[in-house]
Amino acid sequence: MTTAIAPANIAFIKYWGMRDAEQTLPYNGSLSMNLDACLTTTSVLFDPALESDHVTLTLYAQPPKVAVGRPLERVVAHLDRMRALAGVTTRARVTSSNNFPADAGIASSAAAFAALTLAGVSALGLAMDERTLSRLTRRSGSGSASRSIPTGYVEWHNGDDLTSFAESIAPPEYWDLADVVAVVDTQAKKIGSAENHHLAVTSPYFGVRLEGIQQRLDAARTAIMQRDLTLLGTTMEADAVSMHLVCMTQSPPSFYWNAGTMAVIHAVRAWREQGLEAYFTIDAGPNVHVICASGDRFIVQERLEALPEVQFTLVNRVGHGARLVHVND
Amino acid sequence: MTTAIAPANIAFIKYWGMRDAEQTLPYNGSLSMNLDACLTTTSVLFDPALESDHVTLTLYAQPPKVAVGRPLERVVAHLDRMRALAGVTTRARVTSSNNFPADAGIASSAAAFAALTLAGVSALGLAMDERTLSRLTRRSGSGSASRSIPTGYVEWHNGDDLTSFAESIAPPEYWDLADVVAVVDTQAKKIGSAENHHLAVTSPYFGVRLEGIQQRLDAARTAIMQRDLTLLGTTMEADAVSMHLVCMTQSPPSFYWNAGTMAVIHAVRAWREQGLEAYFTIDAGPNVHVICASGDRFIVQERLEALPEVQFTLVNRVGHGARLVHVND
Repeated sequence: MTTAIAPANIAFIKYWGMRDAEQTLPYNGSLSMNLDACLTTTSVLFDPALESDHVTLTLYAQPPKVAVGRPLERVVAHLDRMRALAGVTTRARVTSSNNFPADAGIASSAAAFAALTLAGVSALGLAMDERTLSRLTRRSGSGSASRSIPTGYVEWHNGDDLTSFAESIAPPEYWDLADVVAVVDTQAKKIGSAENHHLAVTSPYFGVRLEGIQQRLDAARTAIMQRDLTLLGTTMEADAVSMHLVCMTQSPPSFYWNAGTMAVIHAVRAWREQGLEAYFTIDAGPNVHVICASGDRFIVQERLEALPEVQFTLVNRVGHGARLVHVND
Repeated sequence: MTTAIAPANIAFIKYWGMRDAEQTLPYNGSLSMNLDACLTTTSVLFDPALESDHVTLTLYAQPPKVAVGRPLERVVAHLDRMRALAGVTTRARVTSSNNFPADAGIASSAAAFAALTLAGVSALGLAMDERTLSRLTRRSGSGSASRSIPTGYVEWHNGDDLTSFAESIAPPEYWDLADVVAVVDTQAKKIGSAENHHLAVTSPYFGVRLEGIQQRLDAARTAIMQRDLTLLGTTMEADAVSMHLVCMTQSPPSFYWNAGTMAVIHAVRAWREQGLEAYFTIDAGPNVHVICASGDRFIVQERLEALPEVQFTLVNRVGHGARLVHVND
C-alpha cells in the first residue's frame, strides 16, 4: 500500500474556464499557494484479487463512506489513466481522508486528486518527474489539482498537454504568508465549478478577463519574488472580482457571493484602511480567503470570528506540495 | 411663488459614466420608470429684494435646513442657467422638501433637480417644451434628473447637448409595475456617484458594458412595449450587474453592494424559482429595488420585510413626471 498527502491550494490568479475538457486545459495560467493545514491523505493498493476498484472516502468528522456514482467514476477514470501508463489492468483499493471540514468551501478535489495521483503512480512503480506528475494530475479533470503537486508558491502554465504543467516558483519558507479562511456558509455548493468552467465563455466579459490575465500573472509572480504584499493583494483581489463577475454575467448568471461574503469583503477593506494589511480572494463558493503576513494571522482570525456572518475560520500558512508518507503497517 | 413636484426614478438600463461634465452628457442612453411615491416638492420665488439665493431643504421627518456649501452651489449654478435663459439676474428663494426618507438610498437629486428646473423655469415665465426642459434639467449635473421630467416610462437618449434629452415611451397606466425598495442600509453613501461617474472609464470592463448597452436598451424598450416582465427583468438585472462590476473593477475599486444587498439578490432569485416573478436592480448604493407586477407588490413587500437584513421597504408604482402644482396661499 502506498500513501500520499497533498494540500489544498488557494489561487491568487484563478483558473476559470476550461478550454479542453478531455485534457483539462485552461484558458489561462494561474498561480497559488498551498495550504499547510488543509490536507488529504490517500492510500492506494493495487490488488489482483479485486474485480473492480473500491474507493472509501472519509470526510472530516464523518464515518467512512464507500464512493459510488460520479465521485467513484472520476477516481476509476483517473486510475485507468495510471494503469494505461503502467500497462496493467489490476484494480485498486483506495482510501482517502480529509483533515479539514468538507463544508468549509475549500476546494477538496485539488488535494484529493493530487494525493490520488502521487499515491497511484508510486503504487504502480512508475518513474515520473514532478512536471509529468502535475500534468497527469491535471488530466484528472480537477485542473487546479496540478497546483497541489509542487511545493509552496506554484504556477500552472497554460499550454497544450505537454506544456500545461505546474511548477514551484518559491518554497514555503521564501515568504511566510497566511490564508485565514472565513467560513460564512457551510451548506453544500449549489453550483459546481465544473458547470461554470464551461459557461464562462458565455460571459461577454470573459475576453477582457483573459486580456488582463498575463499582466496580473506577471504582477503576482513579481510580488511573490519581491515579497510585496500590497502588489500581491491588490492583484489578487482584482483577479477574484474578475472571475466572479464572469460568473455573474454568464448565461444563465451564477452568484457565488452571499451576504457573508460581502460582509467580509467590506471588513477586510476597512481593516486595511486602519493599517491591517490583509486582502481577500474567493473561489467558487461564498467563503472568503483572507491573505495576510503570517504574523498577522491571529489578529485577522480574531477579527473575522467577531463578525456575526463568520461561522468559523481555518488558519493556513504556506504548505509543501504532495508527498509520499511511510505508514507503519 | 411657483411650486413643482417631481418623482424620483429607477433606471432599468443605467446611466453610468459621464462623457462630458460641463454638459452632463452620458456615455449611453438609459431607461427608467418614475416612482409614484417618492417625490420632491420645490417652490421658487424670484425676489428683487434678495441679494443672494436662499435655499431651504426639508428632508423627510427632519426640520428645515438652510443649504450651504456644495448643495447650495449646485442650486445656484442651476438657477444661473435659468436666469441666463431669461436674461435676468434676480435672486431666488427656494424651498424644497422630500416625502421619502433621505437615508433610503433613493437618488433624491433626480427628483430635486427636476422639480427645481420646472419650478424655476415657470417662475421666470420661460416657455419651454418638455424636451427642452429635460435637456436643461440634465445640465444641472444630475443627469438622471432629466428622466424625472417626462411621465411614466422614460428613455434618456445619448447624444450631444441638443439631442440628449429624455422622453416618455409609455404612460404609467400602460403597464402597472411596482418597485418595492428594500432598504438594507440607512447610512449615508460613502461613495458618491459623481466620483464614480468619472472613474468608470478606468475599468477595463467599461467598454464591454457599453458594447452591450444598445442591445439591452432595445430589449428593455421592447419589453415595456410588450409588457414582458421576464424580458424586462432579465435585461434589467444584467444591466445592474454590469454597472456594479464596472465599479468593482475601476481604479480604485468601489463596492456598493453589502451583505444585505446580496441577501436580497439571492432571495429574489429564489422566489423566482418558486414562481414569484420579481427582479432586482441596484443604483449607486446598497439598497435593492425589486420590480414586479403591481399585483404582487404586497407579497414582495411582506417577504422582503421578513428578511433580517431589510430594515424597511418603500412601495412605488409607476409615476407621472414633473408637474406644476397650485398652492393655496
